[in-house]
Amino acid sequence: MTVEHLAAGSKAVPLQEGKLRLYSMRFCPYAQRAHLILNAKNIPHDTVYINLKNKPEWYLEQFPLGKVPAICVDGDRIYESLIICDFLDEKYPENPMYPKDPLKKAKDRILIERFSKVSSLLYQCYLNPNMDVQLLHPVFDAMDHFEKELRKRGTPFYSGSKPGMVDYMIWPWCERLEMLRVIGGDNFKVPKDRFAKLWRWSEAMLEDDAVKKHYVTPEQHAKYLQSHRAGTPDFDNIL
Amino acid sequence: MTVEHLAAGSKAVPLQEGKLRLYSMRFCPYAQRAHLILNAKNIPHDTVYINLKNKPEWYLEQFPLGKVPAICVDGDRIYESLIICDFLDEKYPENPMYPKDPLKKAKDRILIERFSKVSSLLYQCYLNPNMDVQLLHPVFDAMDHFEKELRKRGTPFYSGSKPGMVDYMIWPWCERLEMLRVIGGDNFKVPKDRFAKLWRWSEAMLEDDAVKKHYVTPEQHAKYLQSHRAGTPDFDNIL
Repeated sequence: MTVEHLAAGSKAVPLQEGKLRLYSMRFCPYAQRAHLILNAKNIPHDTVYINLKNKPEWYLEQFPLGKVPAICVDGDRIYESLIICDFLDEKYPENPMYPKDPLKKAKDRILIERFSKVSSLLYQCYLNPNMDVQLLHPVFDAMDHFEKELRKRGTPFYSGSKPGMVDYMIWPWCERLEMLRVIGGDNFKVPKDRFAKLWRWSEAMLEDDAVKKHYVTPEQHAKYLQSHRAGTPDFDNIL
Repeated sequence: MTVEHLAAGSKAVPLQEGKLRLYSMRFCPYAQRAHLILNAKNIPHDTVYINLKNKPEWYLEQFPLGKVPAICVDGDRIYESLIICDFLDEKYPENPMYPKDPLKKAKDRILIERFSKVSSLLYQCYLNPNMDVQLLHPVFDAMDHFEKELRKRGTPFYSGSKPGMVDYMIWPWCERLEMLRVIGGDNFKVPKDRFAKLWRWSEAMLEDDAVKKHYVTPEQHAKYLQSHRAGTPDFDNIL
């Protein structure tokens, strides 16, 4: 595993025979999805972190779109976070992340798809340097559905008694929710009464080993976000 | 099956016991995806067409987001075209739409995901009433990858000797490519030399029974597009 994020001018890290390689960026929520599934399913792998501001030439050769996460496996290359995670779940069937029933699985996939509304609204908040609290209201409105769904399912996790695909796919943005409060103060707090189930879910997620292994505190997320907003994302020196 | 697109004020068409129900709009490319998979897999179903300009109250009650395609199956509701099609493929395993190997399946899914670039660029062309041919160039640039991929695979279809998920998921936009030529003239023709493989693929797709069953000519698509641009989409009277 590299500790630093490799940039232009770096040398590619050779693959290890038979070992899955994940390319990631330490603060990317999409890359975090892949980490979570690799951790949850105990899939042997190594990680190489990529400097997304100044991408290595060898990375762009291998992945012309230059995105993370991406994986190298069995001599081939896969990208797109959801496709990677679904692939991992199919390739390593132990500890399945979806319900067996195709209908229930489809409903989980709809939920994941629907969360993209929350994540894109959150991204607008993150990019706004004025910290306009009004921008957070549509985020909460979009999150209401997830509070309701958790109540409807009546289980601690979306996937039942332990986290599954839905939980891990939406977690990266939930982990970051508190970073706006760190930067902007209590106006940016997630209202506990409105999201009672999600709060309990969040606390339970923080106890999960796969989550713990890749966890970053709200303060560290906030620090990264500020470096990102300043146009000088600090990939390496925050943790 | 309803022939007309049901609008506000209409009555819901009762489900038939044990039969899958598809909600669709005759000119929606996303809904077409679901038709293609239902046809390709010979899944018994009925179709109810929805007037998307003036949606039935009962439809919005059942599907608050009001989108098509959507299906009712086993007392439950599923929407999102790709999720519906993946669900159908899992629930009705005969004539599988994906390769068995998870890695190959993931590569097919990346290809489908990547096509969303083509479809969103095409949508910009469709919405532009000035018929600016410049808008078509980025579409062709994005399509180059699909020409290259077909050449690389060396098979008549992306999925091999017969159409599979990739073929059906991208077909609806390919069926519509010629409608701009109908409206705007030969400047809007898809260059046959640049897309030689895709031309042959397109001809082969037109011979496929699932495609034939839901086929609409470029002239009919053009007529619908013009009604759509005029703000009075003619769902019913074109075919």
